[in-house]
Parts: sequence; structure tokens; C-alpha cells
Amino acid sequence: MTDASTNMRLKLPITCFILEIIIIILFGVLVQYDEGTDAKLWHDRNHSSHSDYDNDFYYRYPSFQDVHVMIFIGFGFLMTFLQRYGFSSVGFNFLIAAFALQWATLMQGFFHGMHGGKIHIGVESMINADFCTGSVLISFGAVLGKTSPVQLLLMAIFEVTLFAVNEFIVLSVLGAKDAGGSMTIHTFGAYFGLIVARVLYRPNLDKSKHRNSSVYHSDLFAMIGTLYLWMFWPSFNSAITAHGDDQHRTAMNTYYSLAACTLSSYAMSALTAHDGKLDMVHIQNAALAGGVAAGTAGEMMLTPFGSMIVGFVAGIISVLGFKYLSPVLESKLKIQDTCGVHNLHGMPGILGAIVGAIVAALATADVYGEGLTDVFPDVASGEISASDQGVRQIISLAVTLGIALLGGLIVGFILKLPIFGAPPDTICFEDSIYWEVRRSGSFILKAVISESCN
Amino acid sequence: MTDASTNMRLKLPITCFILEIIIIILFGVLVQYDEGTDAKLWHDRNHSSHSDYDNDFYYRYPSFQDVHVMIFIGFGFLMTFLQRYGFSSVGFNFLIAAFALQWATLMQGFFHGMHGGKIHIGVESMINADFCTGSVLISFGAVLGKTSPVQLLLMAIFEVTLFAVNEFIVLSVLGAKDAGGSMTIHTFGAYFGLIVARVLYRPNLDKSKHRNSSVYHSDLFAMIGTLYLWMFWPSFNSAITAHGDDQHRTAMNTYYSLAACTLSSYAMSALTAHDGKLDMVHIQNAALAGGVAAGTAGEMMLTPFGSMIVGFVAGIISVLGFKYLSPVLESKLKIQDTCGVHNLHGMPGILGAIVGAIVAALATADVYGEGLTDVFPDVASGEISASDQGVRQIISLAVTLGIALLGGLIVGFILKLPIFGAPPDTICFEDSIYWEVRRSGSFILKAVISESCN
Amino acid sequence: MTDASTNMRLKLPITCFILEIIIIILFGVLVQYDEGTDAKLWHDRNHSSHSDYDNDFYYRYPSFQDVHVMIFIGFGFLMTFLQRYGFSSVGFNFLIAAFALQWATLMQGFFHGMHGGKIHIGVESMINADFCTGSVLISFGAVLGKTSPVQLLLMAIFEVTLFAVNEFIVLSVLGAKDAGGSMTIHTFGAYFGLIVARVLYRPNLDKSKHRNSSVYHSDLFAMIGTLYLWMFWPSFNSAITAHGDDQHRTAMNTYYSLAACTLSSYAMSALTAHDGKLDMVHIQNAALAGGVAAGTAGEMMLTPFGSMIVGFVAGIISVLGFKYLSPVLESKLKIQDTCGVHNLHGMPGILGAIVGAIVAALATADVYGEGLTDVFPDVASGEISASDQGVRQIISLAVTLGIALLGGLIVGFILKLPIFGAPPDTICFEDSIYWEVRRSGSFILKAVISESCN
Repeated sequence: MTDASTNMRLKLPITCFILEIIIIILFGVLVQYDEGTDAKLWHDRNHSSHSDYDNDFYYRYPSFQDVHVMIFIGFGFLMTFLQRYGFSSVGFNFLIAAFALQWATLMQGFFHGMHGGKIHIGVESMINADFCTGSVLISFGAVLGKTSPVQLLLMAIFEVTLFAVNEFIVLSVLGAKDAGGSMTIHTFGAYFGLIVARVLYRPNLDKSKHRNSSVYHSDLFAMIGTLYLWMFWPSFNSAITAHGDDQHRTAMNTYYSLAACTLSSYAMSALTAHDGKLDMVHIQNAALAGGVAAGTAGEMMLTPFGSMIVGFVAGIISVLGFKYLSPVLESKLKIQDTCGVHNLHGMPGILGAIVGAIVAALATADVYGEGLTDVFPDVASGEISASDQGVRQIISLAVTLGIALLGGLIVGFILKLPIFGAPPDTICFEDSIYWEVRRSGSFILKAVISESCN
Repeated sequence: MTDASTNMRLKLPITCFILEIIIIILFGVLVQYDEGTDAKLWHDRNHSSHSDYDNDFYYRYPSFQDVHVMIFIGFGFLMTFLQRYGFSSVGFNFLIAAFALQWATLMQGFFHGMHGGKIHIGVESMINADFCTGSVLISFGAVLGKTSPVQLLLMAIFEVTLFAVNEFIVLSVLGAKDAGGSMTIHTFGAYFGLIVARVLYRPNLDKSKHRNSSVYHSDLFAMIGTLYLWMFWPSFNSAITAHGDDQHRTAMNTYYSLAACTLSSYAMSALTAHDGKLDMVHIQNAALAGGVAAGTAGEMMLTPFGSMIVGFVAGIISVLGFKYLSPVLESKLKIQDTCGVHNLHGMPGILGAIVGAIVAALATADVYGEGLTDVFPDVASGEISASDQGVRQIISLAVTLGIALLGGLIVGFILKLPIFGAPPDTICFEDSIYWEVRRSGSFILKAVISESCN
Repeated sequence: MTDASTNMRLKLPITCFILEIIIIILFGVLVQYDEGTDAKLWHDRNHSSHSDYDNDFYYRYPSFQDVHVMIFIGFGFLMTFLQRYGFSSVGFNFLIAAFALQWATLMQGFFHGMHGGKIHIGVESMINADFCTGSVLISFGAVLGKTSPVQLLLMAIFEVTLFAVNEFIVLSVLGAKDAGGSMTIHTFGAYFGLIVARVLYRPNLDKSKHRNSSVYHSDLFAMIGTLYLWMFWPSFNSAITAHGDDQHRTAMNTYYSLAACTLSSYAMSALTAHDGKLDMVHIQNAALAGGVAAGTAGEMMLTPFGSMIVGFVAGIISVLGFKYLSPVLESKLKIQDTCGVHNLHGMPGILGAIVGAIVAALATADVYGEGLTDVFPDVASGEISASDQGVRQIISLAVTLGIALLGGLIVGFILKLPIFGAPPDTICFEDSIYWEVRRSGSFILKAVISESCN
């Protein structure tokens, strides 16, 4: 299966080396430790009454590590459900995440981290970079199995940049709140990826159809990804909220949203199968929709009651999407969404944005007390009303969708250039295009022999 | 393998929806954020000299996340050792855990979390809910492979409720200490599950015998579960102890107990095999007994020396149980204990309870200093003597066993009603009863066919 | 495959029991809780203005748990890449780690933890014990597949002891800095293991060659190990640095070093393959070299820029080592390095030591401010100059190499005694020598055969 057009011997090293060298130079010129990370700055500041515990590291590093696990294990293994694409799923996920988090540090720094001409970094910028990376990995899910690593790196360059632009507009210009990224991460990543998948539509993809499915053990590997995403989603949504009650509340809201979502996902999975059998695709994905849907309102006074309703609805929508909407998207809109990111990130992301707008519009000083300053600073200062905040949220959703769709369209056409080593239609969803896959001595391998004999 | 009696198309959705809707309503009526989670309450309180770091979130959330991993990855993957039951092991574990943690929040709230008619929740209640869930998952281990998801949800409803009752009696009424739950979690869960398994005894289970065993890769998946349980058990036992030295000491005692237990488990596994070969069943399970056995005394001044002795003995007992006692339980007492929970949770739980009673009875103000107030408040206040505390501990063990056995008996008979879709004796330990298992396209399988053809 | 010489029925239990009993006795005589763990000491101290948060537990326990995961899951699963050696990889890793962490507590305590004749232990000693264990596991990687568990336990006894001696000389006598252990952990463990592998050279190992490779799923299991090592390496390097900016900075430097390393590893993997296909061996290992190489300088003011350069170079060196140096080591120097620890730990460790020396020599009060006291106390006090510190670092590297090589030589010859049950050349890399491997009922596979027959 070696082929000049998909041979990565020069394309991949050149891309990686150029990107990494550019990044290193830009870091050398632009990036500095922030106050909590720099030896001198921290000790200067610490001369006053501060203790080491005030270092943001202790507030945020445990959350960061959970987010990090979601990015590399969670997303990586979730996509190993494909029977012959495990190396690529976890391996390309690894590569583009390692690139994207560096690039995101720079792009996010440009837009909202500059201090005197320098980008200041610390644990919060590390979390934000991982968040941005998550968005790229969502888009990866839509094009999984049909793209070369060089295409994926290119996609990451553009998507990270547009993510930072959108994030800046939504959070800094429009003043919306989106701690867990229902809009900025999930909606953005999903619709960006879906449009890229649309542009890269392959009419003859059914020639690789037999590989575009799971086997027993690949579904178990995928459950590792699912469960880490599920368990650590409370950390994800709360990772960059304000200290104290905000982090605490966001984690708890997400936890209950996910729990309720799991029950509705199982229920819907059995209900929509004619023989009542559960479908691993639903369990692996829909049960996570509650985390996505709590991404905006999670830090608000959503209450556990409200969180559960949101999660419950998200699970139902997500299973229905997998069952009835995805086939339509493919046949009518020509969107081949490998992982079903529309069902896990797209629709639940929009749901989360809408819920966030409603909960924001209902905020009162009576409910939030002094805590209103943390959650809605402009409402607390009297600059705008709570319903204005709700409007900001909705506008932000529209902006996010617009940038994602337009950006995905342009990037899709760039990726379509026939020089990046995309696999042919007949050999999609297949590791051996880009990976050395050992065959001798293994029984899996004999399978392939028998396949080629028959 | 589709069969009307095991068809879950209506049974499972109805059960899930009804349960979740009841839970949501009860949460709406009864549940409120606690002081550390509510925006207003936290900021009101914080007006005084408190800092955000005093929020219990920062003391307990890292422990919570470790416990959460134990519940979903640890228990879930530990049970994937069965060759054809991986989806159910990890998938039903996921479902009943997501349900049980919500239900446990309510039940535990009723018994010891009411404040002015409302249940106050925060990170501590989340940990407690996960603990209660752990107990249900232990019972699940006893009936693994022989029950439908509807039966499991029913079992969870009753078991969570009885767990909360027993916990209330043991901790609040009797004033016993049991931070890591040797009694309330492990002993309770194990004997409850064993009695349920007894009531559900299947005389013809040997018809499914060929599936009731592991294969190479399923044993590796199970080791993921084992290791996460092993690594995070120190966090489990210390998750709800008092802040400061108590959490620190409990984690350390558990760590040493587990390390010693691992060596004795390996030793006993080789010693009890005629050819000296290690048995994965022992390594996966017995090496964890040290965590169970340190569940009560872990927070006390057990010393690393004492912890190691406890773990060492627990490992020996556990392997002997797997090797010699489990076959007797099955043949004589008709208890078909799929995962051997009696050896991992039952006997080590009782051992832990007894050790806890002894160490409590030996407590002196000389050893604990001012710290006695945290560990044994009633002894510190002079209300009772240390040996009284020891007696409390033993009575608590008896109460726990009593409630578990009686509760399991009743619940077992409820589950036996032939309307919940239990699998027939011939198709136990088989995923395809309840799950869509993809066969076509599976190249692993074709390999073997070709091998057997050649 | 049962054979008297490799039968572990008596050898392994006797070894385990004797070792554990010796450890328990020594713990009983010598080990005490430290100030943060002991009920009385903590509360006495706490009478003054301290809060529970000052307990080192809260500064270090999250890091400890990450390190713990690296030791048991990271190292354990990284080595499961071998197709028929998964039980042993993860199981022997578990056994020798559980032993080594206990023994290390004692050995490290003897050399730098004695207080009034007693070894004081707490979360920091737990981390240090895990670090020492990591070194043993690196050596395990060099001899993987060719040693019995009894040999491995013996190796651990000696290696832990020598590790503690070397650590004492490097850190306490020579006053070098090595927070993440580029020298004390990685260089030491790698060269110790390589010399042991040299002494245990097997001229006829090619008889087991067909087992000394991976299969599809074993490579996926190994990626679990890789990713956990990669994700948690920032916690590893920062686990015992000073509180505050030091932990924060070290974690961040390591994070960027790893990210850059990942890109150069992928690039080099494709570049060095004639068909441009990525090799799982490189991805699993070389992408981690950036963590090793940042082990010494990570806590210094290396800057993200410097960290990335270090990681970038480490990845290149590591892939080149796998591709071109390892075959030479085997054919010319007769070093059969199963996991390629020379490429992952050896060369990157030396690189890290050199980088550390350079960065130390360049330290100025201007850059570090008051923080100089934390990182280079002797330079801050004016006792030595920064370049003196650099010299100390280089001497420490030489000492480490010397002790590792000499120690490995002696220990290798001890392990060579033909009484410890090493496997014959024909059955290396094979679980069934030491483990009960279930064959009957094997797999899904026979089911399919029977299905296709029916």
C-alpha cells in the first residue's frame, strides 16, 4: 500500500520542522513567564503578605491535568473505535494536539495575553491552549480516516488562529461568558469540521466502508476515551472559572448534567433499536453530550436541577442525531461525519449556548449576591442588564457559527489541494497508509492474508 | 440471540426515564448548593477573613477525581476480564454508577445532609455519592454476567437506600469511624451482593461456563481497572477524612498497605499453583485487598508498620479465598460469585473492620495529641473511653452485616421476578444479549476462520 | 512450557515473603510519621498561626498521584508492546514497583531522611520513593522479556540501594540540582540497566525473535503507557521542587519541551523510513525524550524557548538512536536493549544533565531575583559562583554514570547465577513461562469458527 502520493517521507518532516522552528523563534521573541512562574517576579510580589498557595498553580494545575488527559487520552482513544485506524486515531491526535497547544499559546497570546509587547504564560494559558486544541480535535473527528497528517496540521494552523479570533470577539469584544466552551470550543469545532468534511466530500467513500466500523476490542479502547472525557468534564468546564464557589459550582453542575445525560442516552439507545439492543456508538458519544451542553451555563447558578434537565435533553438529542440525522446529513448534505461530531458537539453545543443565554438573562443580584461580579461583571457593575447579557450570549453564538462555517469553507478548499497526501477513496480508515503495521507473527495479520486471498 | 424476554426496547427506556424524571423532580424540590458552591452564600461568608482557598473544593476535588476514576474506570475495567462481556462490564457499570450517584445524593441527603428541609450539596456530598455507588458496583461484581440492566438498576435503587440507612446508623447513631468504608462500603456491598447472587442461584450456569473466563486481551483490559483502583485507593480512603494530617496520614497508610499486599498476593499466587505460575485473577483482585483492609483504620495512627501488616495479611487471605473458598461457596452454599467479591471486598472488609476496632480501642491522647478530636471526637471529649469506641466499631460491623444480608435477601427475591429480562442460563456472560455486537467486517475473526480452514 | 528451572512455586514466594517481612520489621523499628502526617505533631505545630493548607499534602499530593500513575500505568503499559508479554510487562512492573517503593523509603531514609535515629515519612518521601522506583523500571525495560521475577526483585534490591547512594552523593554531597532526575533517575536507570543487559547477553536470543515484536492491539495498549507518561511528566519534574513559582515553572517548561519533542519525533520517524511511514516504536518512546531532557533544567529559568529547543533536539536524538544506534549496540557491544531505554532515557538523560549544567552556569541574580535561593541556594548565599554550580552538575553526571556502570556490572553478574529461574533463550518474551495463560475458549475466535461451521 505504498504510494508516492501518500508517501510522507518528506512532506511530514518538512511540515513539522518548519512549524516547530517558527514556533520556537516566536516563543523566543515573544513569550515570557508570567508573575506566578517567573522566579524574580513571584518572589518580588511575594514580599508582601502572599503565601505560596496564592500561586495560581495550586488553584488550577489539578484541573489542567484533567483537561490534558481529556485531550490526549479522551479524544485520542474515543476515536480508536475504528477497527483499522487505532494508530492514526491516537497517534495523529497526539501529533496535532502537541502542535496545536503551542500554536494556540501564541495565537491566544496575541489576542488576549499581551503585556508590554510580550505574551505572558502560566497555568491558565496552558489550560486555554488545551481548550483551543480540543476544538481542533473535534474537527478532526469529522474528517477522521480521510485525511493525511499534513492536512491535519494545516487544518490546525488555520483553525487555531480562527479559534483565537472568535474567542477574542466572543469573550472580550462581546463580553459573553463561556467558561466550558459550549460555543467557542464545541460549536466552533464541530461546525468548522463539518464544513471541512463537506468540502472534502468523497462520493466513492463506500469503497472503504468495510473499514469504517468497529470491532469488539476497538470499541473497548474507545470506552477508555469516553470514560475519561466523562469523568473529567467537570474539571474541563470549571478549569478557568473564577476561584472559589465558581469552580466548585461549575464542576458540580457538569457532574449532574452528565449523570442525567447518561441515563437518557441509554434509554434512547435501547428505544431506537428495533431489538432493544444498546449501541456502543451512542454510549461512547451521546453520554457525553451533557458535558458539552453545560459548557456555558455551568458556571452560572444553573442549580443541579437545571443541570440535570439540560443533560437529560442533550442525551436524547444526541442519540436521535446519531440515529436519524447523521444518515440524512451524509445522503442529502454530503457531510461524511466520521465520529458524529454534529451529535456530540454540534447540537449539544448550540443547546448549551441557548441555555447559557437564558440562564444569563434570568440572573439577579438576589440569587448571586456579591458573586455576581465573578460571573457577570458587567451586570454587577450596572453597565448592562441581565437580559442584555442574554442577548450578548445569543449574538456570540451567531458569530461563532458564522466564523466556523466561513472558516471551515476556506480551509476545506485549501486542504483539498492535491499535494498534501490524502488517502485514495479505496484506502480510507486504514492505518497502513501512514504507519508501519507489523504483520508477521500475529493472528490479526493472517486475517488480512485471508482477505487478500478471497 | 434476540428474544422477547430479554428485549430491552421498552423495559430499559421506561426504567431509565421514570427514574431520571423522579430524580430531577426531587432535586428540584429538595436540593440546594451548599455554602461553598452557592454564589451568594460563599461571598457573604467570604466577607470575613476567608480566602478562596478555604473553599472545600480545593481540599477535596483532587481526591474526588481520583475516586471518580476508580468508580468508572477502576470498577468498570476490572470487570472486563470476561472474554465476551466487556461491553456490559464497562457499560452497565457506567449506567448504574451514573444512576446511583444521583440517587445516593438524595438518600444520603435525607439521612445526614438536611439543612432546614433542604439537602445541601458540594464536593463532599459528591464524594459520598461516589462511595455509595462503589458499594453497588461491588454487588454488581457478584452477579456479573447473569443480570439484565433493568435488574441492576432496581438493585441499585434498593441498595443505595439501604446503604444510606446503614451508613446513618453506623456513623451517626453508633458513632463509629469508617472513613474508607471497610464496613459501610466493602463489607456491605460484598455481602449484599453475595446474598443476591445466592437468591439468583442458577443451577444450570455451567452451560455458559465457556464464556465465564478471560482471554489474553481481556485480562490486559482488566489490569487497567486493577491499577487505577490500586493507585487511587489512597485518595479513596482519605477523601473525606478531616483536613490536614488526617488526609495525609490516611493516604500514606493505604499506600503502604497496598504495597505490602501486592507482594503477599504475588507470593501466594505462585505458591498455590502446582506449577508456580501466577494467576491473573489473583493479581487483578487480591493485590487490592490491602486498600479494603485499611479502610477503617487508615485514618487512625495505624503507623506504616501496622498498615503493612494489615495489607500483607489481606493479600494472603484474599488469594486463599479465591483458590480454596470460592469453589466451596459455589458448590456448597450455591453462591456464584462471578468476580470473587467475597475475596476482594468481603473478607478484607471484615478484616479492616476488626483492625479498626482494635486500633480505636488502643487510641490514647498521648499518641494523638490534639488530633484526637479529629479522629475520635467522643473519646477526645471524654464522653466515652477508647475501648468503648472499639466496641462501637464491632457493633457497627455486626449491624452492617445484618442489614446487608437481610437487605440482599429481600432484594434478591424482588430481582427474581421473571419480568426484568434476565438472560437464560445458556447465554450468560454474553454481550450480544443486550448489545449490538458488530460481526461483519471483523477481520480478526476472518483470520481465525482462514486459519482453521488452512 | 513448564520447566523445573523456571518454576517459581518456591522461589518467588520465598523471595517475596522474606523481603516483605524484612521491610515490615525495619519499618517497625525505624520509620515514623513526619510532622505533617502525625496527629500529635501536626496539631502541636498547628497551634500557631498555621492553617491546614500549609500541610505539604495539599502542595504535593496531586503531583504524587500523577507520578504514581506514571510508575504503574505509564511504565507498565509502555512495555506491553510485546505481543506475548503483556502480563509480564504490566504484572512484573507492578510487583517490582510495589517492592521498590517500600525499599526505597528505607534506603533514601537512611541517606537523607533520618531525624534522631528515625526515618520521617510523608508525601515528599512517597514521591521520592516513586522516583527511585522509576529508575528500577527503566532498567527493567532493558532486560524485559529475558528475566524472571526473582531476578527482577534482586535487581531492584541492589539498584534501589545504589540509587540512594548516588542520589545522596549528587544532591547532598556535591550539591547538584536534579529535580526531575535527568541524572539520578534516567541516566542512572538506563546505564545501570544497559550494563546488566550486557552481562546477561544471550547469543541465541534470535530463537525468540518472532515474539520480540508487537502486534496491532499490543501497540495500542502501549500507547496508553506513552500518553500517561507524556501527560504527567510535567507533574513528575515539578513534584519535589520548591513551592510556588518553582513548581509552576518546572511543570510549564516540561510541557513545552514535550510538545516540541513530539513534533521532531514524528518528523524524524517519517524521515528515517524509506516509505515515509511512521513507526510506533518511535512515537511510543522518542516523543517522551523531551521530558527526560528537561529533568534537570526544568526548575531553572530555562524559559519556554529554551525548553522547546531541548525537547526538539531530544526527539531527534532519540529517533536516530532507535534507528541507527540500537542495532549497533546489539551487534557490536552485545547490549540487547529490549525497550530501547538508551534512546529514551540514556542519551536524553545525558543531554538533560548537560543542559542543566549550562543553564546553572548561566544563572544570575538579575534573572532569578530572590528566587535564586530556592533554585541555587549555595549560589544565592554567595558560597559558590554560578559556574561552580555548573561544574557540580557535570561532576554529578560523571559520578552517576560511574556508579551506574559499576553497579550494573556487579549486579549483572549476581543475576547471572543460574538459580533464579531465568527463561531459556528459546522462550524469552513469553508470558506462559511465568503466568497461567488461558488458551482454551480462546477468544471470540472459536466462537466465530463454530458460527461459520453452523
